[in-house]
Amino acid sequence: MKISARNVFEGRISALSSGPVSAEVEVTTTGGDTLVSTITQGSVSALGLVVGKPVVAVVKASSVMVMTDGSGVKLSARNCLTGTVKKLAVGPISAEVVIALPGGAEIFASVTRDATTELGLHEGSPATAVIKASSVIIGSRD
Amino acid sequence: MKISARNVFEGRISALSSGPVSAEVEVTTTGGDTLVSTITQGSVSALGLVVGKPVVAVVKASSVMVMTDGSGVKLSARNCLTGTVKKLAVGPISAEVVIALPGGAEIFASVTRDATTELGLHEGSPATAVIKASSVIIGSRD
Amino acid sequence: MKISARNVFEGRISALSSGPVSAEVEVTTTGGDTLVSTITQGSVSALGLVVGKPVVAVVKASSVMVMTDGSGVKLSARNCLTGTVKKLAVGPISAEVVIALPGGAEIFASVTRDATTELGLHEGSPATAVIKASSVIIGSRD
Repeated sequence: MKISARNVFEGRISALSSGPVSAEVEVTTTGGDTLVSTITQGSVSALGLVVGKPVVAVVKASSVMVMTDGSGVKLSARNCLTGTVKKLAVGPISAEVVIALPGGAEIFASVTRDATTELGLHEGSPATAVIKASSVIIGSRD
Repeated sequence: MKISARNVFEGRISALSSGPVSAEVEVTTTGGDTLVSTITQGSVSALGLVVGKPVVAVVKASSVMVMTDGSGVKLSARNCLTGTVKKLAVGPISAEVVIALPGGAEIFASVTRDATTELGLHEGSPATAVIKASSVIIGSRD
Repeated sequence: MKISARNVFEGRISALSSGPVSAEVEVTTTGGDTLVSTITQGSVSALGLVVGKPVVAVVKASSVMVMTDGSGVKLSARNCLTGTVKKLAVGPISAEVVIALPGGAEIFASVTRDATTELGLHEGSPATAVIKASSVIIGSRD
């Protein structure tokens, strides 16, 4: 599989809870990070998802927000992963930010050019990747 | 908190309904606009969300669509906020549209360059920001 | 209705299942493709959605991922539509990919410039559009 989504994390399902339509899947990546995903119950069945199953968690760069100075704030977004800006590519309207996490993983975020300025992002600065659970896709190789 | 999401609205929770996995949160902003958000039930608990609680509603610009000539159409997107194009920045592929709402709030939308042409957007033209409830993040400062 | 979302598909509701907060709507397009959407139960009521009702399925280009070499992979994303790259427009950071489906429909995807290179996308190459059900908006004209 090759996918345009810049973020593909290998891991295993570490928790799973289901409702009548939606389900919540927690993936612990090989780098030790945790990603929560909400998917449909239909996908849980179709992919045969159970705790312990190896999966990939896929996140489009445009679904990733970048936060700085997050102390004292709690967000409904279930995934807040703090690291360091490794790379910054700025275009006329859009920009791409790569955040390196302590466990070795890298997260790509597509944001607006203005956001990089307002947040004062530069290589080496601390930053938190914020991802809604509904933006995380689960993939299975079998 | 500084966040790359271009849209951060201060407000209070005006309604809240919960399911086993998902919950629906309605925020009335200080400008008098209403935003509906679907988040996980886990986030409702983690943030201690109740009606009346002051929160921020956060929306990434790339999650905002722009609609014109919307009469006679109903959308499942719970948030349709009509105002006037205040600013338009157009790049080679992407464009940024700022819509000013009657209550004083501004909404940033990242769209394609082609969309701005096809919709005939220009400063001063009427436009509706369309946002799915699942694209709205709730933040709490305590 | 004119909307910045690049993907607007005419069709009819072919299946509908509801939970307390969320609902899953399946739309069969006039081109014969099937799109699954998760929306709130409130929207199902507000739009009066029932099986057989003519609707439009709306998807923002930035919500569409592009996959190649997808054999042996199952994704939780409910919508995987395989076709051929018809057009490719590449900017400094962003790129737009148009995928033509066998039934005649076209799907627009906004991806990063780097993704188009890594996937080796070019006009005529096979590609799959991957869309999460939560990224599909349902519109009704009455």
